[in-house]
Amino acid sequence: MTARIYLDHNATAPLRPGARDAMIAAMQLVGNPSSVHAEGRAAKALVERARAQVAAAIGAEGADVVFTSGATEAAALACSGRDLSGAAIEHDAVGAWADDSLMVGADGRVSVNSPERSTLQLANSETGVVQSLPQGLAVSDMTQGFGKVPVAFNWAGTEMALISAHKIGGPKGIGALVLRRGTEIAAQIRGGGQEMGRRSGTENIIGIAGFGAAAEASAQDLADGVWDRVEKLRNILEKTIAARAKETIFVGKDAQRLPNTSCILTPGWKGETQVMAMDLAGFAISAGSACSSGKVRASRVLMAMGYSADDAASAIRVSLGPENTEEDVLRFADSWLKRLEKHRARTA
Amino acid sequence: MTARIYLDHNATAPLRPGARDAMIAAMQLVGNPSSVHAEGRAAKALVERARAQVAAAIGAEGADVVFTSGATEAAALACSGRDLSGAAIEHDAVGAWADDSLMVGADGRVSVNSPERSTLQLANSETGVVQSLPQGLAVSDMTQGFGKVPVAFNWAGTEMALISAHKIGGPKGIGALVLRRGTEIAAQIRGGGQEMGRRSGTENIIGIAGFGAAAEASAQDLADGVWDRVEKLRNILEKTIAARAKETIFVGKDAQRLPNTSCILTPGWKGETQVMAMDLAGFAISAGSACSSGKVRASRVLMAMGYSADDAASAIRVSLGPENTEEDVLRFADSWLKRLEKHRARTA
Repeated sequence: MTARIYLDHNATAPLRPGARDAMIAAMQLVGNPSSVHAEGRAAKALVERARAQVAAAIGAEGADVVFTSGATEAAALACSGRDLSGAAIEHDAVGAWADDSLMVGADGRVSVNSPERSTLQLANSETGVVQSLPQGLAVSDMTQGFGKVPVAFNWAGTEMALISAHKIGGPKGIGALVLRRGTEIAAQIRGGGQEMGRRSGTENIIGIAGFGAAAEASAQDLADGVWDRVEKLRNILEKTIAARAKETIFVGKDAQRLPNTSCILTPGWKGETQVMAMDLAGFAISAGSACSSGKVRASRVLMAMGYSADDAASAIRVSLGPENTEEDVLRFADSWLKRLEKHRARTA
Repeated sequence: MTARIYLDHNATAPLRPGARDAMIAAMQLVGNPSSVHAEGRAAKALVERARAQVAAAIGAEGADVVFTSGATEAAALACSGRDLSGAAIEHDAVGAWADDSLMVGADGRVSVNSPERSTLQLANSETGVVQSLPQGLAVSDMTQGFGKVPVAFNWAGTEMALISAHKIGGPKGIGALVLRRGTEIAAQIRGGGQEMGRRSGTENIIGIAGFGAAAEASAQDLADGVWDRVEKLRNILEKTIAARAKETIFVGKDAQRLPNTSCILTPGWKGETQVMAMDLAGFAISAGSACSSGKVRASRVLMAMGYSADDAASAIRVSLGPENTEEDVLRFADSWLKRLEKHRARTA
């Protein structure tokens, strides 16, 4: 049996070796960071070291980094009760707290009128389209962009940002809300007063250790040009497919995109069918974002860009990671094109 | 240098080897549980297996187990916006959402008038006092009792219960809200609709794996009588101290207590001073609960039981775990008694 090929990094990325090592090391620490004894102080020191690593990676030195159980919790903390305006392309975790009044262009780019009352993602999980964030923005979901494209919170002009560890090779279940110092938010999870009173609960030491290590490693990857190589692979994939599937559309291709993401739309061929066929063939890809992919419905993101429900339902997302090779993408393209031919034969 | 002795298990317990192994195994899983491909399904299977392990350990087969980032988040989910009555001895995570109108006896036991509008802990973290939960109770914080005394959610007559992994040898940052099936609660963290729509966010796979393994192992420990042995050690500790420190009070000694907890009150000798002195001597203990131990104030729990602020401020908590030995407690008692003698000499 051939090894499976994982091409769904926007859903979640494999754990980085450095994050794994940091987590295993953290398993030795016995203390509760709120305890005053030596064991407690050692746990607290780990949390603060990871906080500095995350702040450095997102360019938020001097800002507050509040650890949460993930970007979804950070979104609730940043957005709930604030009547923010957003676009229909936001992730459900943000969309749950914002309207969808902001206009989305055919290229996936969003126009913001009142930044201080709006939320806008840095990059879209399904299409990879990267936004230009306006100065003075209230909240930006940076979950998909962080680690894949250069971003510095302190220069982005955003009051708050949401990030998640598991999209950058850290563990699932840990993320952060980054806030400009002095920003007031009401704690939703209350009690012991951890995280500067913004978010109570004994800290997820092992997860935080992994997040810190992953953040540091992902910043290094970006500096080393790792994602430039990934972008070349993505472009090889799209060129290979385009040469033999003229009807296929690469969504967002005219806008700036994440280097690793290809949203492939093949009118008349259901995305879910493609995902299942490719799964059987040994490839992990998705139709839409992971969180909503269990639900049978056309991508809200693609429809907001003007695609019909039928066309939107024919989309798949291939999202690459640093460990993918040229062979991976060529094998995927080959296998996918074979299935496309069969699909054509069936529906001809 | 002698190895340190950890006697602060109610603050947090060391990671069990089985939990550690389960977490390291889970690190290999690449997928997002919401993804439909093989990697996603494997991650989903891990979550459901751990859910069954936790349900079995807490006697909640057939009830809903919603994974949260810890008992503190579970408390917010169960209690916020419900105007519950509680006692002053509840943990801050519950106290943040309830009044403190319920009466506390001198023995630490709480009287509940309207169970369906009340919250009551199973056991107190500072004194170890175990409550008799009335049938029909709205919410019970079972965080400290779970794993140390037998408890079955399905027979406890409680609508919802809060538990945490790190108190039973699982990792920090993962817990659960257990609900009778059909109980309606409003999700606070919204988005992808994970955890049956009660709590969105990509699941903390590694933490959940550790929680499941710790729950199973802790149920086995309870069945094997491990805590009976711990209780004997606790009683040896108290007898050794009582023989040479007549003024010392063991809080809650006349009520049913957790087998591992000793709340030791020595009028005139500040608890924080004792904690720091014992830390330097190589022992980790606490004054009050970990979460509030950074703050300089007398224990709210002890004052609710009728102790004066001065007496309450003289309390320390020693909380044992299965790995402690008779030598550990005798060495602690000896070291503590020596320091008590010095304290007496200074203040005589």
